[in-house]
Amino acid sequence: MTSPIVAVVGGGQLARMMAPVATNLGITLRVLVESESAAAAAPAHETVVGLPTDPEAIERLLAHPRPAVLTWEHEHIPAEVFEASEAVGVPARPGLEALRFAQDKIEMRQRMDELGLPNPAWAIAETAADVDAFLDAHGGEAILKTARGGYDGKGVMVIRASADAHGWLEATAQGGPRLLLEEKVPFTRELAVQIARRPSGDACTWVVVESIQRNGVCSEVTAPAPELSTTLARQAEGIARTIAAELDVTGALAVELFEVDGQILINELAMRPHNSGHWTMDGAVTSQFEQHLRAVLDLPLGDTAPTAPWTVMANVLGGERTELEESLADVTDGAAKIHLYGKGVRPGRKVGHVNLSGADRAETHDRAVAAAAVVRDGVTS
Amino acid sequence: MTSPIVAVVGGGQLARMMAPVATNLGITLRVLVESESAAAAAPAHETVVGLPTDPEAIERLLAHPRPAVLTWEHEHIPAEVFEASEAVGVPARPGLEALRFAQDKIEMRQRMDELGLPNPAWAIAETAADVDAFLDAHGGEAILKTARGGYDGKGVMVIRASADAHGWLEATAQGGPRLLLEEKVPFTRELAVQIARRPSGDACTWVVVESIQRNGVCSEVTAPAPELSTTLARQAEGIARTIAAELDVTGALAVELFEVDGQILINELAMRPHNSGHWTMDGAVTSQFEQHLRAVLDLPLGDTAPTAPWTVMANVLGGERTELEESLADVTDGAAKIHLYGKGVRPGRKVGHVNLSGADRAETHDRAVAAAAVVRDGVTS
Repeated sequence: MTSPIVAVVGGGQLARMMAPVATNLGITLRVLVESESAAAAAPAHETVVGLPTDPEAIERLLAHPRPAVLTWEHEHIPAEVFEASEAVGVPARPGLEALRFAQDKIEMRQRMDELGLPNPAWAIAETAADVDAFLDAHGGEAILKTARGGYDGKGVMVIRASADAHGWLEATAQGGPRLLLEEKVPFTRELAVQIARRPSGDACTWVVVESIQRNGVCSEVTAPAPELSTTLARQAEGIARTIAAELDVTGALAVELFEVDGQILINELAMRPHNSGHWTMDGAVTSQFEQHLRAVLDLPLGDTAPTAPWTVMANVLGGERTELEESLADVTDGAAKIHLYGKGVRPGRKVGHVNLSGADRAETHDRAVAAAAVVRDGVTS
Repeated sequence: MTSPIVAVVGGGQLARMMAPVATNLGITLRVLVESESAAAAAPAHETVVGLPTDPEAIERLLAHPRPAVLTWEHEHIPAEVFEASEAVGVPARPGLEALRFAQDKIEMRQRMDELGLPNPAWAIAETAADVDAFLDAHGGEAILKTARGGYDGKGVMVIRASADAHGWLEATAQGGPRLLLEEKVPFTRELAVQIARRPSGDACTWVVVESIQRNGVCSEVTAPAPELSTTLARQAEGIARTIAAELDVTGALAVELFEVDGQILINELAMRPHNSGHWTMDGAVTSQFEQHLRAVLDLPLGDTAPTAPWTVMANVLGGERTELEESLADVTDGAAKIHLYGKGVRPGRKVGHVNLSGADRAETHDRAVAAAAVVRDGVTS
């Protein structure tokens, strides 16, 4: 049996969650992990230990038998990885031309503007004067972001004066990542839409979801987004389709959105499976992880229909419990689908999630959140 | 993170399909495989290469860090494995006292009789006279079975004269497995019921399913069994509960049944995940593989409710295609959940299955069977 090999850069939970679907489909998952204790190391079918910046490690990742495709679980991929992949005839998906819009928030905003897609007001920040002008124009408050390298609330800061931006502006002047300012959108809620697209052009969206962030980190996702108007749902799906097609995205794409005054604005892009799509593992016919593998291998895409009226995903962030697997004995709700990432517990770190599906939204939500709390902290009386 | 280790004897597709759910739950699956090319070898988190009859291999399977429990994917487990496990304090589940009723069909029939559960007529066959007497009493036709070692139609023969049994009787007389005769039940269809039970006694059944066998091998399963009377469904679930409790089964148990004249009779038992339960991987809140791990670890059992009105499982038996993974490109039905076992293709060998769920039974059936045919033989015009 010649099992197609998918090479994955990055050994965190997103690579880990590709392993079960790869096993089901008879696909071999070869993962570049930082260490043998990485979240993806034990579940992966083959591992290469090393960093994406290590050419020798990339060489082993691409070694014979050659992978059918190279993909990744985070966007921080050096251009040399694409060059090495191209040199041996292994397609990298999504390609660097697409990925740079997920790597660089300034390039992303510029491209969304060009496509006529709904951005918040934004500007490049190079000087204190840039910051002052933007604050003056937008009510004295703004979001300052590093164009590259941020995640889960890192590389993002709310500012009310150019003095707040001083340190970051200095860092940029000394060769650090460029900065952009965005208006602080007075959103009523955050939405997200996932899509996956294969090289031949076929693309499938999942239902638009509502996500709740706490301290800049995703906390809960409800699928579908409650009481979302058909107009906004169609608009969100249209945005996802436009970005996927115009940026030539292959694989999974997540578009995070703000809902404000009956309109939607684009928040961020991720060109990979994304936390806002974890609900699909138990709440859709095809999960984002299976679909990502199908898409990058240019296979027919799976059905994305929900399998229940409501599915709620509740993240498990590091809390009181340090041995998370002990929680398996404590969660007595048989409908709770527990996902643990095999990562060391640190406060606030994403270490797992719970999916729960049901017919009643409030009950589904409460049960998902309660189960995640038991995983995190144990049974509290 | 201290991930609980489940040790599994046997490296076929049943062990393989435990790996994805173990990954999700943060459980480490350590599998004894015959070779590095076994179906379960790449997906397993840890592998020990060896045979169940090799004490040194069993020692490595049980080595530090010690597994929390030892289980298996087939019933052909030497008693020495149980002794080795007990000697180091690792519980073996199900225990040998339960497993022998799945290992030995004579012991099983005797025990079902003692429990007052509905057996077909049966008898031990030691001599040609035994066979003649049974044939005379049951219409001149009977099923001859080896008490141990059979599977998928092997160790089973239809006989119409004692001469048909001659070779097997000789083998038995020379120390081969004992033989039993069973009436050839004029069943209208075959049913199966799965249950999982944890050591503390909790047990959950899934819906009763209909299975279709071809040449002694499971071909299709429909969940739930169409037009099954509530009476029979309750009776089937009651049989499963009685067997699980009275035989002290821990882990997954499958009871294969005949439906005949509005009654059910017990056909066979399997004390492990079973082909008749593969539909649960995509058609139930908790799959038989997750439930088996939960049960043997004595964790709370998951919800077994179906997630769709109908789910049909169609086996892929070895056919024209030798490189099964090529089929991933050919199956265009996005609702088909494809499961490939990474095994070499031989005619008639179980090499994969397709699950498909839907609201219309006939359509769901036809689509599942059509997708499995494409996996097996390619696209036929």
